[in-house]
Amino acid sequence: MNDIKYPNQVQRWSVFEVSCPGFSDKNPFVDYCIKGLFSSKNESVEVDGFYDGDGVYKVRFMPSFSEKYSFKITGSFSDSKNSGEFEATPATGNNHGPVRVANQFHFAYEDGTPYYSVGTTCYVWTHQPVPLQEKTLETLSNGYFNKIRFCVFPKHYDYNLRDPETFPYEGRPMDCSVLTKENFQEYVGNPEGNNWDFFRFNVRHFQLFEKRIEDLMKLGIEADLIVMHPYDRWGFSHMTAEQDDFYWKYVVARFAAYRNVWWSLANEFDLMPQKSIEDWERYAAILCEKDPYNRLRSIHNCRHFYDHTRPWITHCSIQRTDMHKTAEFTTDWRERYGKPVVLDEITYEGNINHCWGNISGQELVRRFWESAVRGGYSGHGETYEHPDDVLWWSHGGELHGESQERIKFLHKILCQTPGLGLTHHQVRLVFGSQGAFTWDDVVGVPCDLLYSSSYYLIYFGIFRPSFRIYHFDDINTYEVDVIDTWNMTITKAGTFKGRFRVDLPGKEYIAVRVRKI
Amino acid sequence: MNDIKYPNQVQRWSVFEVSCPGFSDKNPFVDYCIKGLFSSKNESVEVDGFYDGDGVYKVRFMPSFSEKYSFKITGSFSDSKNSGEFEATPATGNNHGPVRVANQFHFAYEDGTPYYSVGTTCYVWTHQPVPLQEKTLETLSNGYFNKIRFCVFPKHYDYNLRDPETFPYEGRPMDCSVLTKENFQEYVGNPEGNNWDFFRFNVRHFQLFEKRIEDLMKLGIEADLIVMHPYDRWGFSHMTAEQDDFYWKYVVARFAAYRNVWWSLANEFDLMPQKSIEDWERYAAILCEKDPYNRLRSIHNCRHFYDHTRPWITHCSIQRTDMHKTAEFTTDWRERYGKPVVLDEITYEGNINHCWGNISGQELVRRFWESAVRGGYSGHGETYEHPDDVLWWSHGGELHGESQERIKFLHKILCQTPGLGLTHHQVRLVFGSQGAFTWDDVVGVPCDLLYSSSYYLIYFGIFRPSFRIYHFDDINTYEVDVIDTWNMTITKAGTFKGRFRVDLPGKEYIAVRVRKI
Repeated sequence: MNDIKYPNQVQRWSVFEVSCPGFSDKNPFVDYCIKGLFSSKNESVEVDGFYDGDGVYKVRFMPSFSEKYSFKITGSFSDSKNSGEFEATPATGNNHGPVRVANQFHFAYEDGTPYYSVGTTCYVWTHQPVPLQEKTLETLSNGYFNKIRFCVFPKHYDYNLRDPETFPYEGRPMDCSVLTKENFQEYVGNPEGNNWDFFRFNVRHFQLFEKRIEDLMKLGIEADLIVMHPYDRWGFSHMTAEQDDFYWKYVVARFAAYRNVWWSLANEFDLMPQKSIEDWERYAAILCEKDPYNRLRSIHNCRHFYDHTRPWITHCSIQRTDMHKTAEFTTDWRERYGKPVVLDEITYEGNINHCWGNISGQELVRRFWESAVRGGYSGHGETYEHPDDVLWWSHGGELHGESQERIKFLHKILCQTPGLGLTHHQVRLVFGSQGAFTWDDVVGVPCDLLYSSSYYLIYFGIFRPSFRIYHFDDINTYEVDVIDTWNMTITKAGTFKGRFRVDLPGKEYIAVRVRKI
Repeated sequence: MNDIKYPNQVQRWSVFEVSCPGFSDKNPFVDYCIKGLFSSKNESVEVDGFYDGDGVYKVRFMPSFSEKYSFKITGSFSDSKNSGEFEATPATGNNHGPVRVANQFHFAYEDGTPYYSVGTTCYVWTHQPVPLQEKTLETLSNGYFNKIRFCVFPKHYDYNLRDPETFPYEGRPMDCSVLTKENFQEYVGNPEGNNWDFFRFNVRHFQLFEKRIEDLMKLGIEADLIVMHPYDRWGFSHMTAEQDDFYWKYVVARFAAYRNVWWSLANEFDLMPQKSIEDWERYAAILCEKDPYNRLRSIHNCRHFYDHTRPWITHCSIQRTDMHKTAEFTTDWRERYGKPVVLDEITYEGNINHCWGNISGQELVRRFWESAVRGGYSGHGETYEHPDDVLWWSHGGELHGESQERIKFLHKILCQTPGLGLTHHQVRLVFGSQGAFTWDDVVGVPCDLLYSSSYYLIYFGIFRPSFRIYHFDDINTYEVDVIDTWNMTITKAGTFKGRFRVDLPGKEYIAVRVRKI
């Protein structure tokens, strides 16, 4: 056999990969195993490796410190014993480490840089033809979003009837030429005509997938991986518990070392009646056991939430359950779950027939702002009808809407807030102008500066006051900006002391930023 | 003494008034009484009369049938006994009789003509200078609204600091020149400086007020009289129980005979902590005892509803209690209270600083449509800043907004619905196009034709589908119109059978009307 291969150095928080030749007889996915033990002055981490085809096994590891590491590779995959050393060098460029929960309701990179989530969703962009994938990356390179949700498995759904570029298993899919817009629903949960070996992965599928995780990492975008989902004609959502667990372990072994990975156990878990709460808890247990980095973990709902108080859930991944009132609930959900609130699905900008995909850009951006000032984070998606059924929400490609530029603008404003993260400043009913705020101001204050009264971000949404009176105190001077969140302008209203009036344009989607000088 | 005066005939459902000379010594409001008993083949009604100043007492009566009536006037007001006869002639023109509850959740005039409420609010338009009152009537003559809410008492509130043209009592008000935008709130509930005789009404105030009730009647507009309210610097909201009851009886004696009168016991009753539920129930009992016509009765809230299940309440008069979700609750409130749901305050079109008065015309009209297809009725109000503080919501005058024309358009569509009143057709989640509707259609059906599937009014609000698939049955043919509720256009989409696709403009505020041929 040949020797193992690995680099002498990698950047801290990057993937260190050891490539090991091994047995290729029998079923290497099942019949052989590989593990790695990585040690440095500050950590000692054991991880599972995985079979990557062609007689090659791999072990991936993310060093959390910039220092010398040594490692040992063990397992039945080979008769030889392997070990080595490498150096983790300091992080550079946009490498700030993995994203963690910070200040209870917010996120920061491991180096302490605040992370204000502005996500999008392209469920199966990595399953599209390569030119379309490249187009998606080109669109994403504009910096509209810093998180994207997408699926490991391919998707079968309205507007999603074509076969993916690759399948995750060895075998043969059903004939998709029989599908029409009218009959496709009959094939959901009915995997007849498919023929898969659920114990032999198609490594090409995973290799291409993790290439895209890397591409996103370079763009500074978090990869919110949807590991299971119900939109399926191939049987991937109807595997046995043994097959599911086998899949979960393989997924974790391959992807966990990428610092930008977040785990989304499912999209719309409650549309998978074939999986019980015990199943989801078992997957979570596998994840907690096998992912040594404690990547962010959540699970996304359709009609009712998973119990986000479960200790393994790091943040709420929410699909709104009401048609009209959505981001306004951010405050309640923060209180109920005591965790970051990420509104991953809050209705998409678009014009398709489905009600979850046809609001205006204005309304979507309003929901982003409404959640932002309340200390939560909304997610984008776009579903405009397209002659070739290429919709950003599933396929990626180009954006045709109006919200993305405004979301980028919001992100810029959030990055300018002091400290880490906003919290909703709940104001009591004070008539007229006799308090700092009236009950209809939706006010975000930095959670690090709760009692300093030095910064307020006030958002009016659909309400259109032509002026507001504020009176914080009689001592300090405040600098006030009027922000048109739709037209993306910031206008200085002036500096004020005592009781003062701020003139406003009397139109929708206006914010006011107040900063103590 | 002189003889009593009365006409020989009046139209059915009009005011028959008997004018009687009487004693003017002592305090005629307190020390003398007058009653009338009116009899015909079909009814026998006793009503209280009232002192109208200058030694004149009056008794008013609305005949409910077109037939001969006789009457007797009794009481201590005079030593003479009086009686007479008159003829009630058939109703003509826009006289359809008083509005009654019909089909449980709706309204109809007493002659059976459906009444689809499209209301507005000008709280104290009758207390403004006469030219402004005339301007209000001119605006109302455009037929935008068929109901208006306004107060018997004058109003003290932001934008409402001037004295009214007349006061309801003999006496002297506080000096209003001391009031400013900043200090006016201090005078609420603090009637110092006023000097009233709460047992001597200023009859001029009431005479002018009922002239306006008559003007509205001629325009076919219901007068939703707000008998009490908290916006007060004169002490009218802080009278004793005896004074309150005295006022209530006088109001009923004067106004009950006008067929277009509705009784609103209060605006924002819950902002009057000085009145208990027992007080409101006592006023209601007076009303039920003294108003022989059983005019519509309700009570309007601020933060929480009165118990609209109370038997004396004929319909819910609701101020929305949530900033964002308002008319969407119509379905719930209908179910909870089992009565007509009138959303009298649902945020006004405008741009003032107060959040209850600064939404767009689009959003207000959306709320009207949302309630309409759910079988409820919204109310209009307008609060645009004005150089002389003349805001439609309080003062009347001219309208500056965009919603009124669209409200008139909605009313026209409602008048074209078959039967009497819509009800929300609650649809179950059916994927895609496999049912008549998907869960996101908000569908109104005529409550008289619930099971005939012959008429649907579907409203999309902020949702912007570019098409919808419908499939009602395979037998009937349906005529489909696409209604742009904002641009007020009705476009024929065609006639269809079986499963069919309706192309839509993919913008906000679209409705679809489906009629079986």
